[in-house]
Amino acid sequence: MGLTSARIAIDAMGGDHAPTEVVAGALMAQEKFGVDVILVGDPQQIEASLKEHHSNSPLPEIVPAEGTIEMHEEPLGAIKRKPNASINVAMNLVKQKKADAVVSAGHSGAAMASALLRVGRIRGIDRPAIGAVLPTMVRSSPVLILDVGANVDCRPKFLEQFAVMGSIYSQYVLGVDNPTVGLLNIGEESSKGDDLAVRTYQMLQENSLISFAGNAEGRDVLTGKFNVIVCDGFVGNVLLKFAEGVGEAVLQLLREELSSGLRSQLGATLLKPSLKRFKQRVDHVEHGGALLLGVAGICIIGHGSSKAPTICNAIRMARDAVNNEVLERINLQYQKHQKQAIEQDS
Amino acid sequence: MGLTSARIAIDAMGGDHAPTEVVAGALMAQEKFGVDVILVGDPQQIEASLKEHHSNSPLPEIVPAEGTIEMHEEPLGAIKRKPNASINVAMNLVKQKKADAVVSAGHSGAAMASALLRVGRIRGIDRPAIGAVLPTMVRSSPVLILDVGANVDCRPKFLEQFAVMGSIYSQYVLGVDNPTVGLLNIGEESSKGDDLAVRTYQMLQENSLISFAGNAEGRDVLTGKFNVIVCDGFVGNVLLKFAEGVGEAVLQLLREELSSGLRSQLGATLLKPSLKRFKQRVDHVEHGGALLLGVAGICIIGHGSSKAPTICNAIRMARDAVNNEVLERINLQYQKHQKQAIEQDS
Repeated sequence: MGLTSARIAIDAMGGDHAPTEVVAGALMAQEKFGVDVILVGDPQQIEASLKEHHSNSPLPEIVPAEGTIEMHEEPLGAIKRKPNASINVAMNLVKQKKADAVVSAGHSGAAMASALLRVGRIRGIDRPAIGAVLPTMVRSSPVLILDVGANVDCRPKFLEQFAVMGSIYSQYVLGVDNPTVGLLNIGEESSKGDDLAVRTYQMLQENSLISFAGNAEGRDVLTGKFNVIVCDGFVGNVLLKFAEGVGEAVLQLLREELSSGLRSQLGATLLKPSLKRFKQRVDHVEHGGALLLGVAGICIIGHGSSKAPTICNAIRMARDAVNNEVLERINLQYQKHQKQAIEQDS
Repeated sequence: MGLTSARIAIDAMGGDHAPTEVVAGALMAQEKFGVDVILVGDPQQIEASLKEHHSNSPLPEIVPAEGTIEMHEEPLGAIKRKPNASINVAMNLVKQKKADAVVSAGHSGAAMASALLRVGRIRGIDRPAIGAVLPTMVRSSPVLILDVGANVDCRPKFLEQFAVMGSIYSQYVLGVDNPTVGLLNIGEESSKGDDLAVRTYQMLQENSLISFAGNAEGRDVLTGKFNVIVCDGFVGNVLLKFAEGVGEAVLQLLREELSSGLRSQLGATLLKPSLKRFKQRVDHVEHGGALLLGVAGICIIGHGSSKAPTICNAIRMARDAVNNEVLERINLQYQKHQKQAIEQDS
């Protein structure tokens, strides 16, 4: 990509605080990272938000769209019923090469459905996955978990593809050297788990494109030992949302303990900066969004409750994925892989 | 049970710190709760541990056993191959009505296998489950999660039975009035999730023995909104171990933040008592063990790393289950239930 800056289409109507916070986050990212943002949605509402937040950088382009997919709607049906919804129009921009990536804080299932219908899958990938990055106990070693919700039922082959795509993302976007892959399971031994786990273990062990480090139990997820953890979308979704819930619960318990008695209150005052840093490390808001891997376009999905700083982080993730040519690398890997498979067959 | 005190058979050879810490915990429980403990295992080793820890309460009974099931052994095979292993001898005591409950910090799969082979299931229960209690953001509202590892593949009927047994345990042992039941899932709507989740939702909604409160997402687990959460043993095991891992990660992050700089160190010193209370609320060691529900005997499984205080807590859990007649209540419910089913059929 080199000299041209990444062009990011923003679903301005997606999320609990859309469009105001989404537009504010887009402007932030434009100033901070020098990306070109394209705001997709209702022009009147977007212009009102722009007036509220705009400082002195150039006004972003607006591409009109009609309506949005609501959180309660069944994704595939809604995506078909509302061809001009903001997420669909944003995906079209990627398909038409007018944008390099999409960022949305709206319905994640709808974003996946729209990506599949508008831009399609990468050749060689059966099922795209949603990945989420969590911080671990080792600062330089974040963990990417996938799938966290797109595929409730998985086959071993899907998890193997998640492992390859996740390794590429970890290495080129998260900057992890030789990322280790773990299979989420209920024990260390290769014989542990359900049928899916046992068969996937075998495939991962034989795959030369990744550094398979064995089964990852729940307690291993945050140790930093694994950089990529693969699982089906049911377990992954429960785990990710639990992690968010735990973060909130821990911060509340801590607040309760720290506000009881004068001694604690004094101590807490002294600790304010430390506790703020602690909160930042625990809090999901700091960690941007989830990503779609396996579709033929970059797409970052922010949390529905995203405010401007989270949107801004999600846009940075999208820019990093574009600049580090994640799509091209996955593509290349699967072309090689398929070529090898064809050669082996013949 | 009334006037007689509960007789608890302790697998003295199970766990990373057996028999020393197990024996110490048993003595603690005997003094604190007035239970009768029976130490099962190698007499020589147990006597050595007793000498080390014994104060002035009466010496517990020792029942000899040969060997133990190691953590890496395949449970069912090992249980059959070693009929005189400590967990088997302890289960025999329950079968022979010489003990009211078993406590073990050994191989949890082996405890389940031994319970099934020696004491059997409660009539009407297809699959026993392992349940684990976690604290929530509401102090008086703990959550019991089951299954956390016994049944990797589940049918809707199994989860329904977990819900009924869990409700009884929550009400009579954890003291929760009218416990609410949640189905672990990836969305709130009844249509969400895999086939197992959708079919189980329907069954739970129609079951008049429980207070079904709908789907519980990962983020709802610790809010206190649900007192019993049912799921298959794969998801439950990942979740429980992740919760343990998160507790450790959070405490380490907090320690790191609090030890950086003089101001933080002074604040941390003032906060020591608050942070200790916080640690106790987060730490799994304080919360005793997991329980087997659905076998015809009370069995509490402590964490493999249990030291004396955790063993002591696990024994208290066993005593509470005995004194509150959990088995009898589950039995009664399922006899009623089966009678109704037979009457409806005829």
